[in-house]
Amino acid sequence: MVERLLPVKNISLLGSTGSIGVNTLDVVAAHPDRFRMVALAAGRNYRLLAQQAKQFRPEVVAIWDESLKEPLLDALEGLDVEVLCGKEGVIESGRWPSAQQTISAIVGAAGLAPTLAAIRAGKEIGLANKECLVMAGDLFMEEIARAGVTLIPVDSEHSAIFQSLFNGQVGSVQTTLTPSHKKEIRHLTLTASGGPFRGWKRTQLQSVTPAQALAHPNWSMGRKISIDSATMMNKGLEVIEAYYLFGVAADKIQVVVHPESIIHSMASYHDGSVMAQLGAPDMRTPIAVALAWPERVLTEVPPLDLVEIGKLHFFSAPDEQDFPCLSLAFRALAKGGGLPAVLNAANEVAVEAFLEGEISFLAIPCLIEWVMEKFTPRKPSTIEEIMKIDGEARILATSWILQQRKE
Amino acid sequence: MVERLLPVKNISLLGSTGSIGVNTLDVVAAHPDRFRMVALAAGRNYRLLAQQAKQFRPEVVAIWDESLKEPLLDALEGLDVEVLCGKEGVIESGRWPSAQQTISAIVGAAGLAPTLAAIRAGKEIGLANKECLVMAGDLFMEEIARAGVTLIPVDSEHSAIFQSLFNGQVGSVQTTLTPSHKKEIRHLTLTASGGPFRGWKRTQLQSVTPAQALAHPNWSMGRKISIDSATMMNKGLEVIEAYYLFGVAADKIQVVVHPESIIHSMASYHDGSVMAQLGAPDMRTPIAVALAWPERVLTEVPPLDLVEIGKLHFFSAPDEQDFPCLSLAFRALAKGGGLPAVLNAANEVAVEAFLEGEISFLAIPCLIEWVMEKFTPRKPSTIEEIMKIDGEARILATSWILQQRKE
Repeated sequence: MVERLLPVKNISLLGSTGSIGVNTLDVVAAHPDRFRMVALAAGRNYRLLAQQAKQFRPEVVAIWDESLKEPLLDALEGLDVEVLCGKEGVIESGRWPSAQQTISAIVGAAGLAPTLAAIRAGKEIGLANKECLVMAGDLFMEEIARAGVTLIPVDSEHSAIFQSLFNGQVGSVQTTLTPSHKKEIRHLTLTASGGPFRGWKRTQLQSVTPAQALAHPNWSMGRKISIDSATMMNKGLEVIEAYYLFGVAADKIQVVVHPESIIHSMASYHDGSVMAQLGAPDMRTPIAVALAWPERVLTEVPPLDLVEIGKLHFFSAPDEQDFPCLSLAFRALAKGGGLPAVLNAANEVAVEAFLEGEISFLAIPCLIEWVMEKFTPRKPSTIEEIMKIDGEARILATSWILQQRKE
Repeated sequence: MVERLLPVKNISLLGSTGSIGVNTLDVVAAHPDRFRMVALAAGRNYRLLAQQAKQFRPEVVAIWDESLKEPLLDALEGLDVEVLCGKEGVIESGRWPSAQQTISAIVGAAGLAPTLAAIRAGKEIGLANKECLVMAGDLFMEEIARAGVTLIPVDSEHSAIFQSLFNGQVGSVQTTLTPSHKKEIRHLTLTASGGPFRGWKRTQLQSVTPAQALAHPNWSMGRKISIDSATMMNKGLEVIEAYYLFGVAADKIQVVVHPESIIHSMASYHDGSVMAQLGAPDMRTPIAVALAWPERVLTEVPPLDLVEIGKLHFFSAPDEQDFPCLSLAFRALAKGGGLPAVLNAANEVAVEAFLEGEISFLAIPCLIEWVMEKFTPRKPSTIEEIMKIDGEARILATSWILQQRKE
């Protein structure tokens, strides 16, 4: 058989200086024959963005913070590259004409507009941003279906489920299961490391500091996601993502605590089979999957060696008593009416306030729950409505913090 | 979306009274709308065969032992069913005209001819017989390719690898990997329970009785396979099967001891992903996979509950010092020239002699090694040559036993 020569794929990377962005470039750098960066976009880290531009020679770079355009131009030292700025600039870079795939790795609600623009421009999507699904799940999946583009999750858990469901499937993939496939699925099981405070009780959690919460045992991640992992909100957001991504009922989504983070997630079928994806906890694997699908490219991720690991010593149900964020996420899914977006916005505000030392670790779920209860649910039918809900939830969350400060 | 109505599939079952056969009928019985038994063939258990015929109303039943045709006819009590006997009768039932799929579950070399006949008749194959691949791997896979039929392994380990490689893939499946898929595979990892004597040393193994060896910790299996599991030859035969089935190099096939038999086997890719199939140790799952592929039907296999299991407490390299059968299998693969068939024949004779109390447990690998060394390798190019090699190896094996008896 003659080996098929695969063409180079042009990539736009939204969020190139974050941890997913840096890992994406690491995978891309190893395969210049397979991937070419045509667009890089970052928020504020213009120095790293300029360095990346010099290495990868994209056609365009974009920086969200307009005030940093001049420093970026200086740092680029006359490199022949188009330079854009502001939200519009980032959106342009995400739907850059020559790009075939856009990796959506901007953290937070800010990732929504550029990702939607990329979908509408017909780009294949590698999705690392959680908020696209958490805030705007229904609308986002409708846009994906309307554009007919392939959507591949980058989050390690969703990548694991994606691979478990669709490994070996060639051609364009719709993550949303067909009715007959859905009938065969008993559960999707997201594994959770349990974060740095697994096994801790409320009394111990009272005095947790941001530094403690940022020290994740298995994964090297961004600050926001590290705190979400410590509160288990990360898993809550992932449950919401899985719900929209794969189109299964919420009661078919389970969470199992598995501290080694070796089994990244699983899909259980009604014939008794459980398909799982395992691997070292290294984001380069799911990134490589998203970039190369349905092929697989070599990465430097160390091969999994179960004999060396020796055992998987612990599987347990999550402690929803002491880590209530997961239950809040299920509650938001059950209530609908914009509640997932409210949960997400309140959580963003809470995490930032915790990192700034303004509120305690245990106050994070209290704040979110309070905002969810204050909010009157209404089903958003446009992105603008979702952004309005997001704004309202942030105002409510901020008011809670101000109120608490007074007390 | 309208739900697709799946047609009934006509099944021929070779080896209906063995443990795979009985489990196959258990799955089929639960899905009369999906599967219909048109042919049942057994070796000697005419009573059970007659019972099965009364329940499943096939068009034909066949019994290998011709002397049992009369008792079978009596037991059928005038049931309207064609009755065949002898090797030819079994072959006829395996390629029965109305059958779409033949489940090949006759244990041992006897399964070879009927399975090949079914392939040549264009039947889809569900393969539980190990010897088709171990004795005649190259030729068998050539026949599969020539006939263009789908081959689905039933052995739990190979089913696990099959599912790991091809889950979600619709349409006719060739198990042999394409060159580009092969390049992406780092290892296929067969898990092994380690059998009832895992951790035992030679001194302890000296006095092992057939009854001890038949008591497998996880799987309820036939006698021959139980002994193979105790000697680890089962895993050796599976390595050979995987080699031919998936077309990967022998050094890409690994064995890992995993006593819980929860991870049934794995495929490791060069991007760091490991795809695995997990489940309760129950043959009805891989049987259901083979019957329904690419769909999945409901079985009564209890859903896997990792939280209840709590941990997977042990992964280790196999002990090839005290259980040399695995190394003998790798050696047979490396030498080729009919050696896998020799290994298989010598093992069959050895296991039977052990079960009859004629030789000791530790004598099994000694006998096989001796036969492999006595045999002059030659590459067989027809089934007849393979059967001749099989016969020679059996004679050599028997001569070893006779010799030992004299001493």
